[in-house]
Amino acid sequence: MAETSRPTIADVARRAGVSKGLVSFALNGRPGVSPASRERILDAARELGWSPSLRARSLSVGRSFACGLVIGRSPDVIAADPFFPSFIAGLEDVLSTSGQVLVLAAVTPGRHEEQTYRNLAHDKRVDGVILTDLRVADARVGLVEELGLAAVTLGVPDLASPFSSVSVDDGAGIRHAVEHLAELGHRDIAHVAGPEEMLHASRRARAFVETAEAHGMRGRVLTTDFSAAEGAAATRALLEGDAPPTAIVYSNDHMAVAGLGIAQRLGLTVPRDLSITGFDDTDLGRHLHPALTSVATDARAWGAVAARTLLEALAGTPATHLDLDEPTLVVRESTGPAPRRPRRSRGSTV
Amino acid sequence: MAETSRPTIADVARRAGVSKGLVSFALNGRPGVSPASRERILDAARELGWSPSLRARSLSVGRSFACGLVIGRSPDVIAADPFFPSFIAGLEDVLSTSGQVLVLAAVTPGRHEEQTYRNLAHDKRVDGVILTDLRVADARVGLVEELGLAAVTLGVPDLASPFSSVSVDDGAGIRHAVEHLAELGHRDIAHVAGPEEMLHASRRARAFVETAEAHGMRGRVLTTDFSAAEGAAATRALLEGDAPPTAIVYSNDHMAVAGLGIAQRLGLTVPRDLSITGFDDTDLGRHLHPALTSVATDARAWGAVAARTLLEALAGTPATHLDLDEPTLVVRESTGPAPRRPRRSRGSTV
Repeated sequence: MAETSRPTIADVARRAGVSKGLVSFALNGRPGVSPASRERILDAARELGWSPSLRARSLSVGRSFACGLVIGRSPDVIAADPFFPSFIAGLEDVLSTSGQVLVLAAVTPGRHEEQTYRNLAHDKRVDGVILTDLRVADARVGLVEELGLAAVTLGVPDLASPFSSVSVDDGAGIRHAVEHLAELGHRDIAHVAGPEEMLHASRRARAFVETAEAHGMRGRVLTTDFSAAEGAAATRALLEGDAPPTAIVYSNDHMAVAGLGIAQRLGLTVPRDLSITGFDDTDLGRHLHPALTSVATDARAWGAVAARTLLEALAGTPATHLDLDEPTLVVRESTGPAPRRPRRSRGSTV
Repeated sequence: MAETSRPTIADVARRAGVSKGLVSFALNGRPGVSPASRERILDAARELGWSPSLRARSLSVGRSFACGLVIGRSPDVIAADPFFPSFIAGLEDVLSTSGQVLVLAAVTPGRHEEQTYRNLAHDKRVDGVILTDLRVADARVGLVEELGLAAVTLGVPDLASPFSSVSVDDGAGIRHAVEHLAELGHRDIAHVAGPEEMLHASRRARAFVETAEAHGMRGRVLTTDFSAAEGAAATRALLEGDAPPTAIVYSNDHMAVAGLGIAQRLGLTVPRDLSITGFDDTDLGRHLHPALTSVATDARAWGAVAARTLLEALAGTPATHLDLDEPTLVVRESTGPAPRRPRRSRGSTV
């Protein structure tokens, strides 16, 4: 029977060799549990398949033991942007061992999105939400506060927020890429950026422009929807235009891989004729030929920290701000010295 | 206020210009609503941000208005296998317009997985579940039936099942790829397969072996975990071994892209020296140089049909079996005539 086979806090405590109190602290994401103990307790819980008896606990504390991720973009993006699958995997790393489930919804921003948050709160489907893709003057912050949900934001909103935030300085990643290209002698570079309305995309574009200026480089920015198709189109426009750049900094690996394909199609050799850098350091970029130089951010770790921070907020920890490690540039084969003489367009070398 | 702004069935009916009864049929996924009307109603519901008042309806019908997807693999796989993001996007296409949410959990098969299903049922977190990655003699079918959950299986289990199933004959996709290579004169080919314990991976491998035999070709199979890294390693083993094959059929695009990188690294030109085919027809493969010949399956449509089938099961529709369109082979640049003379290993041409 499900009931008799259901492991208890006591079972977890016995297996982990700690007190029941410590187990309940760890499993509820409360602070004050050493990383080592938390690890041992979560392992024991995982091995036993422990999960709180929701029916019992909901009655006592009126909680749903679920966290919500409402992706305010077309469902396409879940498939197109490698960030989300990795980030969701990171959320699951923590939620799956804390007796919480992830409630996922993809909505179109606007009325549909607002109503989804209202329903999640009103129906008590979730105790808290993770706010991703922060927008300029993001209305979701006030809405979620009004609805009485706990929340954690990815990045710091550009308006007052009562919620904890977890940030990665992706601008620093782009800075490293541009500085790397400057050292290689590039003077005319371009950035294939994501949508302006997304804070992380516009942060990356701003970092590109500022760093290029600081090094006296010409820096052009083309905006896309983050898809491989638009990354390819932007690359073609740059390489077929007059005075094409000698290096392109992409805002994700998918667009960089598509850009590499276009460059090769136009008869260019990477990195001899053109240097390219990606963002996300995906598994795929590592196995390309040439292997992709890319900005490494750990979306999965970001998801795990965001989930843990939300659980701590639910446990009453005051709002705080966490900065994850600065992204690093992984230099591989797709970047090299700037070509000595400028090319004409259409990839024909002078 | 959330309450006053909450749209009702009547609002949706007015906007769609149909009766309230038809709206409730459509929104509950009941059969007997014409596709055109369903489309118009779902559009109206989407525009209004309609969603059932869960608290009210749960009390009346004791349902949670949530569907569960328990991925019995490491959270990595959510990020590594392009199938899941697309499939989840398809689920959201339907659930987001039916007032249902998706409850997602990643678990390690075994005790943890069984306990997760038991908790989802016992805690009434979900009304039904979608069973993916069917295994040989899959114990989840009996477990979910015992727990009284509705379910839909992706593919037909190899044991008796009371649930509806939605299948894609991915074996046919591999068959098309092998026949295409046979027409191009290839006689010695290899298949870089996924894990044997996954029915779809083993179905693809079996289709490869049978079709190769039927055409009098030598057909080797190497098993991997579906990751780009293992796809690259398998490719290196094949190309550096004695009498390397003239074509490789990969069980997903990620491994094919990695394999292309290895072949190029070894000095081979694709498709002159080696032909390769992928599976999934990802956006990325289209933009490679050479563009990837790949088996096109529509994981997103599969997700949408699975969600709709599960909603129909919840509405009382008897169990049924649906076959989606047979996958097609999209021939691009990565396949060509077999090289006239066999190569020695390490990519050196005779």
